[in-house]
Amino acid sequence: MKIPEILLIESAHQPGSLGRILTAIGEEGIVVEHLAAVRREGDRTVWEITLEMDPDKGGRLAARLNGLPNARVLGRSDRVFNRHRGGKIRTVSTVEMVSPQILRDIYTPGVARVCLAIRDDPALAREFTGIGNTVAIVTNGTAVLGLGAIGAVAGMPVMEGKAALMASLAGLSGVPILIEERDPAKLVEVVAAIAPSFGAIQLEDIAAPACFEIEASLRSRLRIPVLHDDQHGTAVVTLAAVRNAGRRVDQRLSVSSVGQVGLGAAGIGIARLLFSRGTARILGADLDAAALERFAALGGEPASLARVMAEAEIVIATTGVPGLIRPEMVRAGQVILALSNPDPEIEPRDALAAGAAFAADGKSVNNVLGFPGLFRGALAAGARCFTDEMLVAAAEAIADLAGERDLVPDPLDRTVHLAVAEAVRQAAIDSGAT
Amino acid sequence: MKIPEILLIESAHQPGSLGRILTAIGEEGIVVEHLAAVRREGDRTVWEITLEMDPDKGGRLAARLNGLPNARVLGRSDRVFNRHRGGKIRTVSTVEMVSPQILRDIYTPGVARVCLAIRDDPALAREFTGIGNTVAIVTNGTAVLGLGAIGAVAGMPVMEGKAALMASLAGLSGVPILIEERDPAKLVEVVAAIAPSFGAIQLEDIAAPACFEIEASLRSRLRIPVLHDDQHGTAVVTLAAVRNAGRRVDQRLSVSSVGQVGLGAAGIGIARLLFSRGTARILGADLDAAALERFAALGGEPASLARVMAEAEIVIATTGVPGLIRPEMVRAGQVILALSNPDPEIEPRDALAAGAAFAADGKSVNNVLGFPGLFRGALAAGARCFTDEMLVAAAEAIADLAGERDLVPDPLDRTVHLAVAEAVRQAAIDSGAT
Repeated sequence: MKIPEILLIESAHQPGSLGRILTAIGEEGIVVEHLAAVRREGDRTVWEITLEMDPDKGGRLAARLNGLPNARVLGRSDRVFNRHRGGKIRTVSTVEMVSPQILRDIYTPGVARVCLAIRDDPALAREFTGIGNTVAIVTNGTAVLGLGAIGAVAGMPVMEGKAALMASLAGLSGVPILIEERDPAKLVEVVAAIAPSFGAIQLEDIAAPACFEIEASLRSRLRIPVLHDDQHGTAVVTLAAVRNAGRRVDQRLSVSSVGQVGLGAAGIGIARLLFSRGTARILGADLDAAALERFAALGGEPASLARVMAEAEIVIATTGVPGLIRPEMVRAGQVILALSNPDPEIEPRDALAAGAAFAADGKSVNNVLGFPGLFRGALAAGARCFTDEMLVAAAEAIADLAGERDLVPDPLDRTVHLAVAEAVRQAAIDSGAT
Repeated sequence: MKIPEILLIESAHQPGSLGRILTAIGEEGIVVEHLAAVRREGDRTVWEITLEMDPDKGGRLAARLNGLPNARVLGRSDRVFNRHRGGKIRTVSTVEMVSPQILRDIYTPGVARVCLAIRDDPALAREFTGIGNTVAIVTNGTAVLGLGAIGAVAGMPVMEGKAALMASLAGLSGVPILIEERDPAKLVEVVAAIAPSFGAIQLEDIAAPACFEIEASLRSRLRIPVLHDDQHGTAVVTLAAVRNAGRRVDQRLSVSSVGQVGLGAAGIGIARLLFSRGTARILGADLDAAALERFAALGGEPASLARVMAEAEIVIATTGVPGLIRPEMVRAGQVILALSNPDPEIEPRDALAAGAAFAADGKSVNNVLGFPGLFRGALAAGARCFTDEMLVAAAEAIADLAGERDLVPDPLDRTVHLAVAEAVRQAAIDSGAT
């Protein structure tokens, strides 16, 4: 698996030192993802170099670098782990506890007045508590990224990442809820029981087919928005990318031939949204018969991987299988979105080299572009649920904000999330979700 | 109920104006809790005056104040509600999302490395997620303050208050969990199911007797600290106050006659901790036969309210019944802790006027002095549970930090909570809780 390796390498502070190191890395067939000078000691500099590489190439690379004049591999950097130390989110008080009077207002005895007001008019909870700005991020850890069923606690860094992004990009309070439970009915009972604490529920990294039943059941039981992000968040961002890719190569989505490889949670969510947007025909491949059945029930046409690659103009892969699409399968002019994380079905550069007109992976076409604005918009509208109109509005907003030559915009641009939120809020009202 | 009334009163900016207003308020038998000048308009000042008063006295007071020269009641202040607007807590990211590389480290693809590390060694979750610093604050809203069963959502302002105090006083992440469920077994199932998300569980405002069963059941099922704050948090702070009160009037707790009025969650928690500290005899009054039975099972001596007041040197009241203790019941030299919130069984000033040596209410002898340090200490030790030794250590630390003439220290003094946490951490290790 190509999770980034981050090496600390010391070099002489002399012309050519860094060039020699990077050239050697390149000659090993390894791509540099990031580079930073982390400290200077006398006449030497320590570099932190982030590499896309298989861990088993590490020994060979180190030997080669240590053989260069004035270079030395110091070891691995702990940067990623350091950035996770103690967790990535925390709860803060929005009230400064600076005087006894503030304590008496926000705690006893003053708080009693607010409690009684909410008892008498429950709608006031939206105004005088944080419930209306808080999203539960619920997982059972059965499909974490492309890593599989690693368990809810092992999935916590992803849940915290989502919460950190919600906070940073959309001003929402995300609360990770880890439930080590595979039985859909039991999971639903637990989530429904704690739902009064939250304004909305994001289901995350729950494997198919349980995710479909869990989401449907919660949607029918709760009067707050529930969204399985892996299905619909991914579908929203994929729809945006597909729309822009189609425009770039002059294909209209309604007449293009779309192919999907992988029909799990993300694949089914994408197919559903594409059909709701008028895509006439989608070919779909999956090894699982039940997945193909669900796809066919939506109106999709089951096919082999080879047929999808041979016939589709736009290929969307969500299998979790790195390298599944070999370069020789790619046809000239195809659009390839290989969305599995952390490793795509085919690296975009390899797809482009094989003739693809556009290619992207799940690191750029990522649901971080969707969920912050989706939830913020739904909560701002006071929506009871997510409608397809809200999902499509989010996709259109994302697509509109992409640069001339990009499929999607920069996820760190806060104005993108505000625009998505506003589009979703308006669509919630227009589609009767409020 | 004497929840504070906050009035906006305009007066001329002239010598004597404010004095006339406050004198008139005093002559109505109303105590001023707080006073602030909120704005100056020309030759007039608007005052925000916080009063301890029954709401039904409002009309009479307003008429009297409007009759003063150059004074006018403008209406009620929204200060308490304004301080609650949007809620009192939020989730923030501890990582600044300033570059694509940070996004790649804390989200996909870098996060996968941390997930896999935790999958391989679950203990790493304490190091690289916030779980070990996060406390669920769980309520079913059946005994919120002294307001009764107002429901979990109406109790949210209290839960957010606790979370805000945990954050502000002890650097902990509190997460309110509202569960509208009265069946103890079902509540336990839900809390146990979400427990992996948290480092500890604070049960809050759950009525007796269900609270006893719920806490015992969660303690036996979970390997993380579980504490019903209304029982044990209150008991810790009460023990500290009782110890200091005893010293001030030269009574040793082991030989004093202690009396309790009210044997609900708080009362039973207090009795349990007093007995574990060697108190020889406790008289206890309650209208509920089952409560008296629970008290007797601990070794307590059931008695009437009159007998408790007639015989006990230290009286601890936790009934939720305002004004239950009439001044004529108080004996000279008694210590009276009337702890119900928002309104005590007897106002401290009335108890002192009736001859009490020491008197305090639940606003000063409040568990805000206990729970932040209790949880921080337990989490810092990696404790599996709370032991009595940890509770007693917290009480001793709180008692030691009170000023010469006070029963307890200032809850806004952060050093108090750090000292409590350190005492609890050490006691956790010494008592084998880790």
